[in-house]
Amino acid sequence: MTDRRVTLGLLGCGTVGGGVLRLLAENADKLAAHAGARLELGGVLVRSPDKPRVPECDPRLITSDGMALVRDPRIQVVVEVMGGEAAYQLIAAALDAGKSVVTANKLLIATRGDELLARAEQRSADLAFEGAVGGGIPIVRTLREAFASDQVTAVSGIVNGTCNYVLTRMLDDRLDMAAAVRAAQELGYAEADPSTDIDGHDAAHKLSVLALLAFGAWVPPGSFSVEGIRELEAVDHRFANRFGYRIKHLVVGRDHGDCVELRAHAALVPKSSVMANVSGVLNGVLVTGRALGPCLVTGRGAGSLPTAVSVVSDVLDVARSVVAGVAGLQTRAIKHARRALLPMADVHTRYYVRFTVSDEPGVMAKLAGALGDHRVSIEQIVQDPDVATTAGGATVVMVTHRAREGAVQAALGSLAGQAFLVRPPLLLRIEEP
Amino acid sequence: MTDRRVTLGLLGCGTVGGGVLRLLAENADKLAAHAGARLELGGVLVRSPDKPRVPECDPRLITSDGMALVRDPRIQVVVEVMGGEAAYQLIAAALDAGKSVVTANKLLIATRGDELLARAEQRSADLAFEGAVGGGIPIVRTLREAFASDQVTAVSGIVNGTCNYVLTRMLDDRLDMAAAVRAAQELGYAEADPSTDIDGHDAAHKLSVLALLAFGAWVPPGSFSVEGIRELEAVDHRFANRFGYRIKHLVVGRDHGDCVELRAHAALVPKSSVMANVSGVLNGVLVTGRALGPCLVTGRGAGSLPTAVSVVSDVLDVARSVVAGVAGLQTRAIKHARRALLPMADVHTRYYVRFTVSDEPGVMAKLAGALGDHRVSIEQIVQDPDVATTAGGATVVMVTHRAREGAVQAALGSLAGQAFLVRPPLLLRIEEP
Repeated sequence: MTDRRVTLGLLGCGTVGGGVLRLLAENADKLAAHAGARLELGGVLVRSPDKPRVPECDPRLITSDGMALVRDPRIQVVVEVMGGEAAYQLIAAALDAGKSVVTANKLLIATRGDELLARAEQRSADLAFEGAVGGGIPIVRTLREAFASDQVTAVSGIVNGTCNYVLTRMLDDRLDMAAAVRAAQELGYAEADPSTDIDGHDAAHKLSVLALLAFGAWVPPGSFSVEGIRELEAVDHRFANRFGYRIKHLVVGRDHGDCVELRAHAALVPKSSVMANVSGVLNGVLVTGRALGPCLVTGRGAGSLPTAVSVVSDVLDVARSVVAGVAGLQTRAIKHARRALLPMADVHTRYYVRFTVSDEPGVMAKLAGALGDHRVSIEQIVQDPDVATTAGGATVVMVTHRAREGAVQAALGSLAGQAFLVRPPLLLRIEEP
Repeated sequence: MTDRRVTLGLLGCGTVGGGVLRLLAENADKLAAHAGARLELGGVLVRSPDKPRVPECDPRLITSDGMALVRDPRIQVVVEVMGGEAAYQLIAAALDAGKSVVTANKLLIATRGDELLARAEQRSADLAFEGAVGGGIPIVRTLREAFASDQVTAVSGIVNGTCNYVLTRMLDDRLDMAAAVRAAQELGYAEADPSTDIDGHDAAHKLSVLALLAFGAWVPPGSFSVEGIRELEAVDHRFANRFGYRIKHLVVGRDHGDCVELRAHAALVPKSSVMANVSGVLNGVLVTGRALGPCLVTGRGAGSLPTAVSVVSDVLDVARSVVAGVAGLQTRAIKHARRALLPMADVHTRYYVRFTVSDEPGVMAKLAGALGDHRVSIEQIVQDPDVATTAGGATVVMVTHRAREGAVQAALGSLAGQAFLVRPPLLLRIEEP
C-alpha cells in the first residue's frame, strides 16, 4: 500500500457532501489503490458549525471560513458541493492558488465555465465536474475520455428528472400536468416552486455543459432556445401514442461544423427507441460519434449518493494527476471556443402541431392551407371528437413532414388572431434517433 | 503543443487495425492534447506483408516478425488487434519487457486474464482492454472509473450483437430461428458457422471480463452455466409478448459477498424496460452500484470503427500514464481473485416453461402437479390452440412465481420420459430489472 497522501478540502456538507464523506470512508482502501495515494480530509466548510453533522465528519475539521480553507497550504484538492453562485469566489481562489477543483455545480460551469477553465489552464490545475450533469451517470467521463479518439457530431438527452417524472406520470396514470407536478412535489422530485425544472432552465444549464465537452463549444444558457413542459396536456400524450411516439423533455445538440445547434424543449420520440423508455426520474444522454455511432448512458440523474459517486470518481482522477505531477493536463484538453449558433428558424425536423379550434365548417381547410402556403407538407391530420383539451373547443393535430422551423413558425404566425383559434397552437418537435 | 512522443507497435492490421490507424491519423492533434504526447507509430505486424494495406499504413513500418516488434526498445506501447490465441505470446513478451499493452482480445482476457494481469502488475505495465467487451461502448471504463468510488453489486446485459439481431428479427418480422440466422449471415452479422455466438460462448467470454472488472472476480468461462438461443421458437416471442416481456440473450452477474452468481442464457425482460428496447445489433450493459443505483450503457457492440475508438481511447489512457511515469497504476487496481460460484440450483428467479405435449385429457394437471410437488408455485398457465411449435403437439406455457432453480429443474426432471411430452420442455428465466 502507498504512503502518499492527497489532502482534500470539502466545501459544503449537505446531502451530497455527506455522501462524499461516506464514500471516502467506506471505500478508503479501494480509492487509495486507484489513486496511488490515500485521500485524506483536511477541512470541511459548513454554514452553521453548530448544526449536528453526518457521523463521518470529524468535528475538528469543521470551519466556517471557506477562503481560509481553500488557501490553506495543506489542502491540495478542493471539492465543492455547496452549490449556487456563492461557490464562485472559492473555486476561483482555489484555481488561482494552483489547486485542482472538483465541483458538482452546473450553474457555475454553465455560466462561468470558460472563465474557470481558463483559470485552471493558467495555473495547471484540473477542474472536474462529472457531478454537474446527469447526477450519477458517467456522461462527462464518457464524452471526455471514451470519445477522445472520435469526433462527437451530436449529443441529446433527458437531463431533467423532474420533467421526466411528471411526463411519465401523465402518460402512465393519465394525470393532468398540475396533478403530476403535485405528485412530484410530494415525493421530493420537484421543488415548491418547480419553475427551474418545469420551464427547462435546469436542462438548459446542463446542455451548456454538454456542448462544452461534446463540441468544445462555449455557449452559455440564455443564448439558445429553451422551452419547458407547462403547455402540455394529457391529450398530447394520447395523440403522441397514437402516432407511435412518447413525449419527453429533451436537450438537443448538433455540431454542424460552421455552427452548433442547441435547444431544450419537449419533443416526440419513437416509442420503440431506448430514449422513450428512459422513465420516471431516470436521465439518459445519447452521444453520437463519427466513428463510434450512437452511445446512450442512462441512470439516476440526481440524488445525493449518485452525485456523490460522480464527485468522488472525479476526486480520484484529480488526485491521481496530482500524485503523478500532471495536474491540469486533462482539463487543458477541454476546448471552450465561442461558436456560432444555428438560428432556431433554420432547424429542420418534423413537427407535431396541436390546434384548439371552435368546431365550425372550413376550419380544417384553413389550418391546412396556412401550412401549405408556407410549403410545409402535412403527413397526417387527426381530429378526434373524444379528445378535448382543458380549454374546450375541438382538437386538431397535424404531423408534418420534415420542414424548416422558420416556415412552420411563419405558417402559425399567419393564423394568429383568427377567431376560430380558441388559443395559440402548441408546437412540438419530433426527434427521430 | 507538446514535443513528447509515445511510440506504438500495432499487432494486426485487419479491419480494427485499419480503424485504429485511421483514428490516430484523423485525430492526431486532439489525441496529443489529451495524452500530453504525440502518438507515433513504430511498426505494424501483418500476416502477409505483400497484401495491399489501408492507405494510413506507411509501408516502411510493416513487419511480419511480431516478437522482434514487441521487443524493439523504441516501442513503448503495444496495441494488439490481431485477435485469437496466437496473440498470447506477443502480449506476454511485451508485458514481461515492461511495456503497456492495449488489446481488444476478449478470448485472451477471459481465459488468461489473471495471468496477464499478474504479469502486468509485476513489471508495472498497464493492460487495457476496453475493446474486449461491447465493441465501442465504454463499459470497461465505466466499471473501472465511474464505479471506482462505489461497490458494484450486479452487472447484466446484452453483449452479443448476433443473438440480439436474430431475436429482434424473430420478433419484428415473425421469422423462425433458421431464417433469422440466415438473415444475420447475409448481412455479415453472423459467421458461416454461427455457433460461437448463437450458443452463448462469445457472451460467456465477455461475462468473464465483466466479472473481473465489476467484482474483482476471476471466473474463466467453462466454470459457469452457459446457454444459447437455438431452442427458441417464434411462439416463445408471442407468449412472452402476451405476458408483457421481450426475449433477450443476457449475461447476468451478481456479487453475493460470499460467492458470485454468473450465467449466460436467453431470458424474458419486461417490455417497458430499457433493456428490452436495446434492439438489433446494439449491445447494452446494466451496472448496479450500491450508491449509484442502476446505470445502463448501450451502443454498437461490434464493428471495426467502434472497436477502434475503444482501442484508441485505451491507447490514450495508457500513453498518458507512460508520459507521467505512472504506468501500471490503473491496472494494479484491478483485483482478480478466484471467487466461489453460486450453484445454478441456488439461483432464485421467476421462470417461463414451455411444454410441447400431446393433446389429451389430464396433461395440464400432470404438468401443474409436477411443479406443485416440488413446491414451485405457478402464476399463470396458458394453452393457446392457435399457437404451435415446429414440433407439432399442443403448447402449454407456465409462468412461475419466484422459485429456486433446483426445485424447478427437479420438477422438470420428474416429468422426463413421460409419453405425453412430445419433446423436453424449454426453461427460460425471467429477469426483472
